[in-house]
Amino acid sequence: MAAWTKIAAEKRLRVRAGIPASLIDMDALAAALPRLLAGKTDVTGIPAASGFLNAHELDITESSLSPLLENLRTGTWSSVAVTTAFLKRAIIANELTNCLTEIFPERALERARELDRIFHDTGKTIGPLHGLPVSVKDQVHIKGVETTMGWISRIGNISEKNAVSADILEEAGAVLYVKTNIPQTAMWSESFNHIFGRVKNPHNITLTGGGSSGGEGALIAMKGSPLGGGTDIGGSIRNPAGYNGLYGLRPTAGRIPFRGIVTSFEGQDSVRIVHGPLSRSLDGVQLFMQTMIDARPWTRDPLCIRKPWETVDVLREHGGGREPLCFAIMWDDGVVKPHPPVVRGLEKVRHALLAAGHKVIEWKPHRHQEMVTIVRKIYGAGSFEEYNREASASGEPVLASMSPDVEGKKVPRQNTDISSHDLYKLQLLKRTIAEEYLDHWNATVAQTGTGRAVDAIICPVAPSAAPPHGKNLWFGYTGVFNGLDYPSLVIPVTRVDLEKDATVSERHEFYGPLDEIVYKLYDSPKTFANAPIGVQIVGRSMEDEAVLAMGQIVDTALKRTATLPLAQL
Amino acid sequence: MAAWTKIAAEKRLRVRAGIPASLIDMDALAAALPRLLAGKTDVTGIPAASGFLNAHELDITESSLSPLLENLRTGTWSSVAVTTAFLKRAIIANELTNCLTEIFPERALERARELDRIFHDTGKTIGPLHGLPVSVKDQVHIKGVETTMGWISRIGNISEKNAVSADILEEAGAVLYVKTNIPQTAMWSESFNHIFGRVKNPHNITLTGGGSSGGEGALIAMKGSPLGGGTDIGGSIRNPAGYNGLYGLRPTAGRIPFRGIVTSFEGQDSVRIVHGPLSRSLDGVQLFMQTMIDARPWTRDPLCIRKPWETVDVLREHGGGREPLCFAIMWDDGVVKPHPPVVRGLEKVRHALLAAGHKVIEWKPHRHQEMVTIVRKIYGAGSFEEYNREASASGEPVLASMSPDVEGKKVPRQNTDISSHDLYKLQLLKRTIAEEYLDHWNATVAQTGTGRAVDAIICPVAPSAAPPHGKNLWFGYTGVFNGLDYPSLVIPVTRVDLEKDATVSERHEFYGPLDEIVYKLYDSPKTFANAPIGVQIVGRSMEDEAVLAMGQIVDTALKRTATLPLAQL
Repeated sequence: MAAWTKIAAEKRLRVRAGIPASLIDMDALAAALPRLLAGKTDVTGIPAASGFLNAHELDITESSLSPLLENLRTGTWSSVAVTTAFLKRAIIANELTNCLTEIFPERALERARELDRIFHDTGKTIGPLHGLPVSVKDQVHIKGVETTMGWISRIGNISEKNAVSADILEEAGAVLYVKTNIPQTAMWSESFNHIFGRVKNPHNITLTGGGSSGGEGALIAMKGSPLGGGTDIGGSIRNPAGYNGLYGLRPTAGRIPFRGIVTSFEGQDSVRIVHGPLSRSLDGVQLFMQTMIDARPWTRDPLCIRKPWETVDVLREHGGGREPLCFAIMWDDGVVKPHPPVVRGLEKVRHALLAAGHKVIEWKPHRHQEMVTIVRKIYGAGSFEEYNREASASGEPVLASMSPDVEGKKVPRQNTDISSHDLYKLQLLKRTIAEEYLDHWNATVAQTGTGRAVDAIICPVAPSAAPPHGKNLWFGYTGVFNGLDYPSLVIPVTRVDLEKDATVSERHEFYGPLDEIVYKLYDSPKTFANAPIGVQIVGRSMEDEAVLAMGQIVDTALKRTATLPLAQL
Repeated sequence: MAAWTKIAAEKRLRVRAGIPASLIDMDALAAALPRLLAGKTDVTGIPAASGFLNAHELDITESSLSPLLENLRTGTWSSVAVTTAFLKRAIIANELTNCLTEIFPERALERARELDRIFHDTGKTIGPLHGLPVSVKDQVHIKGVETTMGWISRIGNISEKNAVSADILEEAGAVLYVKTNIPQTAMWSESFNHIFGRVKNPHNITLTGGGSSGGEGALIAMKGSPLGGGTDIGGSIRNPAGYNGLYGLRPTAGRIPFRGIVTSFEGQDSVRIVHGPLSRSLDGVQLFMQTMIDARPWTRDPLCIRKPWETVDVLREHGGGREPLCFAIMWDDGVVKPHPPVVRGLEKVRHALLAAGHKVIEWKPHRHQEMVTIVRKIYGAGSFEEYNREASASGEPVLASMSPDVEGKKVPRQNTDISSHDLYKLQLLKRTIAEEYLDHWNATVAQTGTGRAVDAIICPVAPSAAPPHGKNLWFGYTGVFNGLDYPSLVIPVTRVDLEKDATVSERHEFYGPLDEIVYKLYDSPKTFANAPIGVQIVGRSMEDEAVLAMGQIVDTALKRTATLPLAQL
């Protein structure tokens, strides 16, 4: 056994050893799992069926966010009780999906006790998240907790202080209790690393949980966390949100503090990585955004923009919420054609919006392939040397893909580092496409009939539902909006349906080799059984508030349509 | 004669040939100049004394901005009359200081006639700048006009459309009439290129007019323009403003549109070059900012931040304008010690602020040398290959400095291009220093006694007044704030005084070789006779509105102190 695999195994044992038997009996859990699993691929029901959570703990963890917060605010539920429940459920979720990296019950419960004491003594809560457990991706520094980002070489690196966002969460009353799994380098849209293994999709564990915030996606879908913080530089919040049936927002860069969050090739200033929320409800997304921005993060992080979170009349540039909106659906990005369930999801949204009195036109993609290529090259421009240095410190190999076939194997990689002169040329081309894209959007005023340009774009999160492990190959549906720095909200729409999605149209012509590979992946809907389907709702830079408000309109329309007998899409 | 010098000479002749004799008789002007100059170094009075402007034209060009706009708004002065007056004065200014590149009276007067016609027909003005001539630096595309940026290779490149900012100026009623001189590459803090020559300081033509917006500085100081647009990536608006006795603002990146403005190594995304105003009054700076931002530039330029220009209660985070402010003066950046007139300027500001009831503490610089080095390396990272390519197209040499000694000469230069991996490391260090600087600023709350951190920093624009040509060596007083992306306003304070500034303290220890060189430059105040001294007023990112309001407070305090009999600083 290579030294690095031993170090990784010891690390996993240490995490496990940090779970007190009083919280959960890990041996008993391990013993029960084969019976609980029993060939299931959908593991979302297992925590409730396991017997490891009592009725109160199930009530807590299955609660929607608003009543959960209300019960904490009124002292009906103590933070210790709520934190205990989510810790237990998160630990079970982890056994089933590998969604966690760090688990720190001691720190969390001490904090929960302190919050309960404050409430007991003063009758007051300390902020809007009082007592609420919040999970964060393993890039966010939490004082006293390790941040490995999945690199063996970083095992044992205990953070000396909180990231700014962790400070803000704690000041608002949150209880930090777990950190969530990510891929090595944090630059894949699946989540595998040599320490914590591979994140599985709770709705179907033969499928990926997505990435790079895959751990958040799986954990929240398992109801092991009510609210989580991920990061997104190419879709890393949105793809796990979409693949796990959640809400998630990639905010505009500069809204949410990033100081104290680690990532690959830090100092890359052109395609800005951002921090943002995933949750089972839009409320959670809204709460995260408002809490962060109400804390005036620009006084703590120089990359944050001095711009308050708006709550009044946020649709004033979109008819004020009184007039019909005009959405534009992008059915296909011209690079990789979406699978039938994804198209059906878009159709469902279209019908719901039309039924609600809104307008829907078609969005024509503009230079998406080029923008995504640029974005990828900008990432790659500093990666080769950095990844090699990081890996050589421990001896672990740099992963060449997320395929299970290459786990732990050294695979030759191409050096993609370039000169800064060439980098500037790429960045200029990115700016040029962004200028054209803005013009392209403005020009839609001629088609909307509202007197405004299109209010938001609606499009797939990815060409497919969560694919089998190692097969998540095209991040362009999300990555293009990182290049453009547009805020983008994911909302869940439907699930893969073995009947409705059975028809696969014959195709013999393809946009390119990747389109053909992805097409062939959809041999039948069975491969993707039960996988959720989401859509992106995309606004213009710094329109985060309006995007959430429009997301609410789409979500409400979808829920209303779902109850109509004729809406049999 | 090399081919490129011939091309440059022909270009200059073409510009001159575009001036109709009906506007100004260029032969008569050339003949009169020796008599008018007669050994003078201060040429600011020559337009008035020249006889080439009639009394009305002198009234117009010597008018303050507010009455000028009022007279245009009421039709008291026609735009044709105002444009003609400024065209004539600008042409005379150019003969004395080389401040212009392009002069386009035909386009300008046609536009002025159109505006007069609109006013005549409708009784209405089209915007806040109705009929006002506005000059812009030769990086801003104006439809139908050349943009050479001082490169021989770009002669003949006629712009097909306006920059976004030029569109906004024209929509607001401005008359574009001249473009202003800059250095080759636009990356020097003086202004010399092989086409249009060297910008001289109107207050003392043996001194530099600064750069890279040196043409704007000299033109506006000559009263050849009431309002101009420059650009700033290291001090290029502020240094010409300070050296020419003007007001000038480097706005926070993302406030003013930059789309359609050319520059060196476009696509460099880390130290953002910005567009901003120079004027003889704060009113001009305010008018430019508000006009640009009221036009919602984020709907036209993807790099602009969706953030309206605030006009109400802009000092709400600074005591609301009702309480005393606390300013921090940085007397010395720890790299190059300022000359006596610069220190006297700061003392004058200090006394004025204390007399007005404000507080003044000391600002300690934090890692300025490092930040400025990083900023310079980021510029350099893409420059070598680009400059060589640009120059080799015509055969002109790339300038190795702004010294008159190297004009037209090929001097070996170091290749400063680096790998993007190394660039990302530099950019990360820049971010780290910016984080520390924010903490450093926040920590001043312990010293201010206002309950707030310092409201603004006041510091030199440069270690000296405008130095002799080729001797402008340290851009760190301004460049550090480009690295930090802080808005910074320059206001004029005083002038070099042969008596008050006669004492030079002996120094035998220096921060470094540059400090010693700059110290030795100040043999006596005579070298800098009559040169203006300004100061920077620096706020936090996106506090542009508050910086202007605080600038008004400082300016008013200075003007009030100037009338007190005891204020003999």
